[in-house]
Amino acid sequence: MEERGQEAFIQQQVHTDLAVEAQESAADGSGEMPGVRIREQEYRELGLTMTRVEVLDERGEKAIGKPKGLYITLEAESMREEDEEGGRELSRQLSLYIKEMLEQAGAPRSVLVVGLGNQEVTPDSLGPRALDNLRITRHLKEKASVSISGIVPGVMAQTGMETAQIIHGIVEETGPEAVLVVDALAARSVSRLGNTIQLSSTGIQPGSGVGNHRHSLTEESLGVPVIALGVPTVVAAAAIVYDTLDGLSELLEAAGAASQADAVEGMTLEERYQMVKELIEPRLGPMFVTPGNIDEQVKLLSFIISEGINMAFEE
Amino acid sequence: MEERGQEAFIQQQVHTDLAVEAQESAADGSGEMPGVRIREQEYRELGLTMTRVEVLDERGEKAIGKPKGLYITLEAESMREEDEEGGRELSRQLSLYIKEMLEQAGAPRSVLVVGLGNQEVTPDSLGPRALDNLRITRHLKEKASVSISGIVPGVMAQTGMETAQIIHGIVEETGPEAVLVVDALAARSVSRLGNTIQLSSTGIQPGSGVGNHRHSLTEESLGVPVIALGVPTVVAAAAIVYDTLDGLSELLEAAGAASQADAVEGMTLEERYQMVKELIEPRLGPMFVTPGNIDEQVKLLSFIISEGINMAFEE
Amino acid sequence: MEERGQEAFIQQQVHTDLAVEAQESAADGSGEMPGVRIREQEYRELGLTMTRVEVLDERGEKAIGKPKGLYITLEAESMREEDEEGGRELSRQLSLYIKEMLEQAGAPRSVLVVGLGNQEVTPDSLGPRALDNLRITRHLKEKASVSISGIVPGVMAQTGMETAQIIHGIVEETGPEAVLVVDALAARSVSRLGNTIQLSSTGIQPGSGVGNHRHSLTEESLGVPVIALGVPTVVAAAAIVYDTLDGLSELLEAAGAASQADAVEGMTLEERYQMVKELIEPRLGPMFVTPGNIDEQVKLLSFIISEGINMAFEE
Amino acid sequence: MEERGQEAFIQQQVHTDLAVEAQESAADGSGEMPGVRIREQEYRELGLTMTRVEVLDERGEKAIGKPKGLYITLEAESMREEDEEGGRELSRQLSLYIKEMLEQAGAPRSVLVVGLGNQEVTPDSLGPRALDNLRITRHLKEKASVSISGIVPGVMAQTGMETAQIIHGIVEETGPEAVLVVDALAARSVSRLGNTIQLSSTGIQPGSGVGNHRHSLTEESLGVPVIALGVPTVVAAAAIVYDTLDGLSELLEAAGAASQADAVEGMTLEERYQMVKELIEPRLGPMFVTPGNIDEQVKLLSFIISEGINMAFEE
Repeated sequence: MEERGQEAFIQQQVHTDLAVEAQESAADGSGEMPGVRIREQEYRELGLTMTRVEVLDERGEKAIGKPKGLYITLEAESMREEDEEGGRELSRQLSLYIKEMLEQAGAPRSVLVVGLGNQEVTPDSLGPRALDNLRITRHLKEKASVSISGIVPGVMAQTGMETAQIIHGIVEETGPEAVLVVDALAARSVSRLGNTIQLSSTGIQPGSGVGNHRHSLTEESLGVPVIALGVPTVVAAAAIVYDTLDGLSELLEAAGAASQADAVEGMTLEERYQMVKELIEPRLGPMFVTPGNIDEQVKLLSFIISEGINMAFEE
Repeated sequence: MEERGQEAFIQQQVHTDLAVEAQESAADGSGEMPGVRIREQEYRELGLTMTRVEVLDERGEKAIGKPKGLYITLEAESMREEDEEGGRELSRQLSLYIKEMLEQAGAPRSVLVVGLGNQEVTPDSLGPRALDNLRITRHLKEKASVSISGIVPGVMAQTGMETAQIIHGIVEETGPEAVLVVDALAARSVSRLGNTIQLSSTGIQPGSGVGNHRHSLTEESLGVPVIALGVPTVVAAAAIVYDTLDGLSELLEAAGAASQADAVEGMTLEERYQMVKELIEPRLGPMFVTPGNIDEQVKLLSFIISEGINMAFEE
Repeated sequence: MEERGQEAFIQQQVHTDLAVEAQESAADGSGEMPGVRIREQEYRELGLTMTRVEVLDERGEKAIGKPKGLYITLEAESMREEDEEGGRELSRQLSLYIKEMLEQAGAPRSVLVVGLGNQEVTPDSLGPRALDNLRITRHLKEKASVSISGIVPGVMAQTGMETAQIIHGIVEETGPEAVLVVDALAARSVSRLGNTIQLSSTGIQPGSGVGNHRHSLTEESLGVPVIALGVPTVVAAAAIVYDTLDGLSELLEAAGAASQADAVEGMTLEERYQMVKELIEPRLGPMFVTPGNIDEQVKLLSFIISEGINMAFEE
Repeated sequence: MEERGQEAFIQQQVHTDLAVEAQESAADGSGEMPGVRIREQEYRELGLTMTRVEVLDERGEKAIGKPKGLYITLEAESMREEDEEGGRELSRQLSLYIKEMLEQAGAPRSVLVVGLGNQEVTPDSLGPRALDNLRITRHLKEKASVSISGIVPGVMAQTGMETAQIIHGIVEETGPEAVLVVDALAARSVSRLGNTIQLSSTGIQPGSGVGNHRHSLTEESLGVPVIALGVPTVVAAAAIVYDTLDGLSELLEAAGAASQADAVEGMTLEERYQMVKELIEPRLGPMFVTPGNIDEQVKLLSFIISEGINMAFEE
């Protein structure tokens, strides 16, 4: 019980916005988790893996630290490469899952797409950039089947306002039947960066996103269903440190240095937490880790996403 | 009477957002205009001219086609040149008039600054760029004497929504006591481009701005006082054509070709309007005229403005 | 003879970078022009018109004011609309003509693509933007059949250097076998803006481009063949004035006001030139006319162009 | 001897572009280092520390891994805060040291300023951004005392060319008497990010900069003196891992867990290197660590730098 509290604390330090990661780190090896249903599917010819995590009830929420709802994750190495054909195929796949989410959300006839994040910080610019190529139709005379509006609200350091407030005001005023939020996410592992897209029916929670949103963007707060579409582009620097500790004990162990491995392995969770805390505080807290070619990744992914959204709304 | 209607029509074709221009073209030579009070002041050492146009009542509104309120225009050739000292002095002057407007607006303790216009079109990017260097304070713990928030709402082609709706929603939600709108304007004459700043107590009217805002941003529509700060960066291409006709008759006359000048001079206003309409429709309607170095002008002016606003809110 | 000099002068005032326009204004009605071969082709299903102007010798150079060489112009209204399929088809067509030009230039195995123009001024940003989506391959280990490098040299106000010097230095150092220059052009008529692409085998001449390049980028100056790919995005404000005068006499004539029409019609070319000069000097000289939605046009066209270039270099 | 080789290897893994860091990690505690002269000076009222590292000969080059020359480092916490007055004072100080470097470089009458780095990746955009506010004078008729030109060459992934080649070509063609290179650097410690400026008389070495330049920009390669002005904006992710190992042994030791500390402490350098290599390969190699508010830091610092350069060239 005590340990669970510590673990939660550590989990927060090394926060992940990805349900697949949360589920992995919560799994105890048996593969069973109460209140969570997981299904994985591989599309070999596309090099694509789709994981569907359903958090069914409170037990599931506690187990993986994510609210009740559906989380669909697409992983494909091809997202990292410039390949027009491959990119279009990914957009097509993505559009199918967006449609499923929209269906679940009551097939809204008007959707506000929100490009969250800071345009001026490359890994956080995914949301704003995705809006650049979106087909906006709400103002056109010839009505599309679904009317699309879009907004790039900026971040608090730029506006002085909670992003959630800005979106709430616009939703109140313009009355879309659903909101689709595109955002850059923080993953737990660098291996997820640039090759993963997550769709969720639960919106945005406080503390999520690269910029750590302080308030939620959810059906509860906005009054209409909120679908979140996110791509991990950074890892908290603190997570790297925590990984090093993990890696260290494994390496020592593998090297047969059992007693030495014990030095780390034998530490209680509390001790480990203390160590991480001391190692990272206060220097690494506000730091993040991101790939050197993040500009290319954000360019490719934001285009795949905007095309996917465009396709989802085509007749 | 009839003629006045035609003139109004032409005036609309060759719309100006500047009260000083509206007043000039409305003046009948006697210098007197009922319902309008004008005062001009020169600051020789600063190379600055300040014109204060007060529209006092409905007669004034009719005469110059601008709503009741105070319009302050600053003109200085030095706005066009990169000169750090000169720029700072202009910001200081501007800050005094912003303060006066704020005072008139009830000395608000919280102000939302709106950067209107299209970031992607250089002459229309003045508003968004001015927001870049603004000192935003609403979210800081140490409260400034006036709390400043800021938003760049985009334009309808990007958002699908009326800008006025977006602003209205944000005002409702975050409750500023006043709104300050920064916008790029359309002038009537190219000689005003890049050397003029207009402050007005009346907000933004439909049809004004480079992008021709469709709805108003005024105290009436937003529920709080709205101060507008604008800089002319374009002239409608149609205005150039109209000017050519004017210039033509003057030239012919000057050349002693009286009978030929009559050809144009002798036309009734209706005939002239028809001619302009045929010449410009449909090709020149959506075209604007702007200087080749508009990037430098917008950079300089947006910086002067953001510094001016920053100074106005300093203690 | 005298008149021809005047006409040349006027033509310079109302300069066009487009060979099709130069040829139209030079044509005397008979359709024959010594030293110039013209072929027009329509692709109905694509809504595309292709005009091939070959300037064969000095007589042709004099007649249309463009140097000896091949000029291919593509015109399609569809360039102005966002249509993924249509855009791809245009890129495909464009790639065929780029291939023809490359073939003529000796089938170079390495090409330096230059994105001329000012990134900060929307209508002049076409060249730099086209480079954004180009597939650069010169640095890759797996060699493409043609090695592509690219540069955005900026403009003189930003660098202090002649763009021609920068390119010359880079060509000397990196030794490409040909240069392909992408640039925004000045047209004579607003009806050409946003729907025209011109390819030429003659490179860039002094005085051409939105920013009026001062030196040439040609095979003579760079030592390797130079292909120029340009899109008209502005019209000189002076050209609008000249058009107004033309339109005025036509209108007056049409209205049966023969004697009045004479007032303008009857003027000698010299008189007309004087009038234009006085009307436009010094206010309109550095001004240009551009559409309100120039951001969308440049976005669409730069994408069509970069895709066209990419296709031309694919195996 | 053997160990020194290993250490060099590790040092490369955890490369620093900063001479002050290289000197710190090379120092053996005695404070003496052959071939290196160090002087530190504090300007209390400015909150500024200046460190002057002179590498005098080969012994010094070996000791700190930096070529012979002068390295001046300015550190001030105030660089991280928006403070107009403070920023101007820092620019003034910086300009004095730039002047000293220029004096040493033979008081050149023409200088090419190069903004190295990738505009699209926030921490690497410092060089290009610094060029934005530079006063370029080479093309003006009224000659400044020193003629300034500037170029933003892009990075290899964008151009396909070595940046060093591009600069070499431009230098050959335009003949400046010196080159001043502005670049974002990689530091060894996150505590240096955003508060440090380094000036060096030795230009840019292969492997330095955020983007790891492959070739040098030095007097030897360009034929004219090269002054480098750099600001650390990232730390290699691998360096964080290495720090964690260091921190781990210290923590264990401090906790009195002597035997456990031995587990890490007792490892040979080779073992440590192997561990780091395995921990970081291949995942962390291309990753970097950067602050969440890197956009604000780059904005502030690039402005301080461009003002500093402008002041250095004023009469």
